[in-house]
Amino acid sequence: MLQSFVRAKKTFLSVTHAGNSSLLHKFCQSLHTSTPSLAKVVAVLYEAGAAAKEPRLLGCKENELGLRKFLESRGHKYIVMSDKEKLLDRELPDTEVLITTPFHPAYVTADRIAMSPKLKLCVTAGVGSDHVDLHAANKAKITVAEVTGSNVVSVAEHIVMQILALVRNFVPAYGQVIKGEWNVGDIAKDAFDLENKVVGTVGAGRIGYRVLERLKPFHCKELLYSDYQPLTPEMERAVGVKHVSFEELIQRCDVITINCPLHDKTRNLFNKDVFDKVKTGVYIVNTARGAIVDRDALVEAVKSGKVRGYAGDVWYPQPAPKDHPWRYMPRHAMTPHYSGTTLDAQMRYAEGTKDILERYFDGRPIKPEDLIVQDGQFASKAYVQPEK
Amino acid sequence: MLQSFVRAKKTFLSVTHAGNSSLLHKFCQSLHTSTPSLAKVVAVLYEAGAAAKEPRLLGCKENELGLRKFLESRGHKYIVMSDKEKLLDRELPDTEVLITTPFHPAYVTADRIAMSPKLKLCVTAGVGSDHVDLHAANKAKITVAEVTGSNVVSVAEHIVMQILALVRNFVPAYGQVIKGEWNVGDIAKDAFDLENKVVGTVGAGRIGYRVLERLKPFHCKELLYSDYQPLTPEMERAVGVKHVSFEELIQRCDVITINCPLHDKTRNLFNKDVFDKVKTGVYIVNTARGAIVDRDALVEAVKSGKVRGYAGDVWYPQPAPKDHPWRYMPRHAMTPHYSGTTLDAQMRYAEGTKDILERYFDGRPIKPEDLIVQDGQFASKAYVQPEK
Repeated sequence: MLQSFVRAKKTFLSVTHAGNSSLLHKFCQSLHTSTPSLAKVVAVLYEAGAAAKEPRLLGCKENELGLRKFLESRGHKYIVMSDKEKLLDRELPDTEVLITTPFHPAYVTADRIAMSPKLKLCVTAGVGSDHVDLHAANKAKITVAEVTGSNVVSVAEHIVMQILALVRNFVPAYGQVIKGEWNVGDIAKDAFDLENKVVGTVGAGRIGYRVLERLKPFHCKELLYSDYQPLTPEMERAVGVKHVSFEELIQRCDVITINCPLHDKTRNLFNKDVFDKVKTGVYIVNTARGAIVDRDALVEAVKSGKVRGYAGDVWYPQPAPKDHPWRYMPRHAMTPHYSGTTLDAQMRYAEGTKDILERYFDGRPIKPEDLIVQDGQFASKAYVQPEK
Repeated sequence: MLQSFVRAKKTFLSVTHAGNSSLLHKFCQSLHTSTPSLAKVVAVLYEAGAAAKEPRLLGCKENELGLRKFLESRGHKYIVMSDKEKLLDRELPDTEVLITTPFHPAYVTADRIAMSPKLKLCVTAGVGSDHVDLHAANKAKITVAEVTGSNVVSVAEHIVMQILALVRNFVPAYGQVIKGEWNVGDIAKDAFDLENKVVGTVGAGRIGYRVLERLKPFHCKELLYSDYQPLTPEMERAVGVKHVSFEELIQRCDVITINCPLHDKTRNLFNKDVFDKVKTGVYIVNTARGAIVDRDALVEAVKSGKVRGYAGDVWYPQPAPKDHPWRYMPRHAMTPHYSGTTLDAQMRYAEGTKDILERYFDGRPIKPEDLIVQDGQFASKAYVQPEK
């Protein structure tokens, strides 16, 4: 229903003098306010329980991304859930806009898209839309958008923290404290400085580059990156990083951080073959996506000591089941997926989600950098996936 | 015995032509090798047990700072212990050189100095000689030296790690993982970015300044420091830090890091009065010395929420007893004292300790930057303490 309205408005726009946009805007607004329940918007967010008392925790089910007033004042229906017992499936037949997050993803599979004839827009409140089947979205001409940049600083900080935690052996050290112990030798024998180590990032995009910027004053021996799209020479010089092949990177690094999106070419990129080739004792931090790393091959590599430590905050699936083996493997410093959902980040992605919705309902174009797929095509290079 | 030899050598030195130092060196060496058991050297180091299999763990009792061959080849007696059951007291009457560490300190009190009539040199293998009563050392004309700079990078990295761990709420997040839980809201409600926060260091010396250098690319809202000795304008500009009073610093910071030495003016510097004045929700990281923070006032401030989180790796006394309340207070991310004893740091301070001993036995001056007290006077400004 809204789409035909938007199309009508677009036609109207095309015949209206460009300078008259203010008048047009008022006209559109009057249409909005006089048209009840224009669209059904469904959001799948994590439940926070008592934590929801923190009003800055916008991205939880209870606080609804702060969007209820905005959506209802425009006459839209807003349903928020955590999708326990697959409640989402019941709503899909007449949902027009679906909001999901990477932290507690509702997996928008081809099957679910087939159940959603009215679905026009999927918004990721955050960054990372791999939980949506983008091929299926393209076939159904569904727009997928995310709040680009909302998490980049948060995740880059998380990565530096987890690199330091692994290299400096923080977790067992903290463990001694709370267990009433004191055995410095036992901690120190596995503790190093980050200084003078070779550190590499697989992917030097918005997050990977920010990690390099933050690592620069740590005086690593070398900073390396692999990426299908090299940085400009100026950007390389600014952080002192060298472009190498993926093969060279994994063989030379003491610390590897994974900062590429998940798609068919990166799924299980870190598999047994790669773990056989890495430097013995390498540390790996993956805040990109859990499925980039082969679950069981990693467990073997950590147990054997080939990988000295693993951290990150991404799992497959999410929430990670109680028996996910990464929870119990030795020498890890993992967290649940929250690096991009600090209170600071939540403010950014709640605002960004509202911006995407406003543009959509107003018939204005979504910011190009936020678009993943639109009109049946990939809008973002990062997610271009070969058809299966 | 050695001292009279050294004095003789010094006299010899003073009458020898400066250009003839190589000949002199050979003469001195010949004297050394022909004189058995010149000095008794005692080192008090932490026990590492099985961890001592790591040969780079030089600073443990078992690996003896790698000094046995060096000392015995020169005819010295070398006794290494962890000072269980106060074994040290039995050795003190004829000990000439005492090597201790800040991680597992042998407290060199006035009483112990009184028991040590032959003690001439106390070497701290590491940085921080406050476990030695420096007034008593001065009265007894004992030289105290440490391996300046051996730990600075290691500790600065530790501080950045612990700041991030507190601000980003790492410890409870990791705790969920190993307990089989997944509750992102419960973590996120207390997780922030470091970006855009006000961060200040009490003390901007070798460690504090390195922390500022490493924090620069995190785009904090402001970087502040208080220090009796201001940085040069060039150094301030290089990291974008502003000099403020201690009072201003504690009232404006979201994160405070303590990087000053312990002496009479800094003992219990962070007391109830200060905790009453800090910004509610401040994070504090103290890797300087435990006694700079009032033990029980901190526990109260953390419990009340005035201090949102506390980390660091220094305690008083050390090893921290099993019932030390900091182990069990909420929202801490503490470690045992090991930040300056990574394997990289151990190599540096083992080498530095050897350098100090070589200079002492050769009658060459100890590097001025390594000297704490000598000839009855404070050689380092950092430790100048008012007489009690």
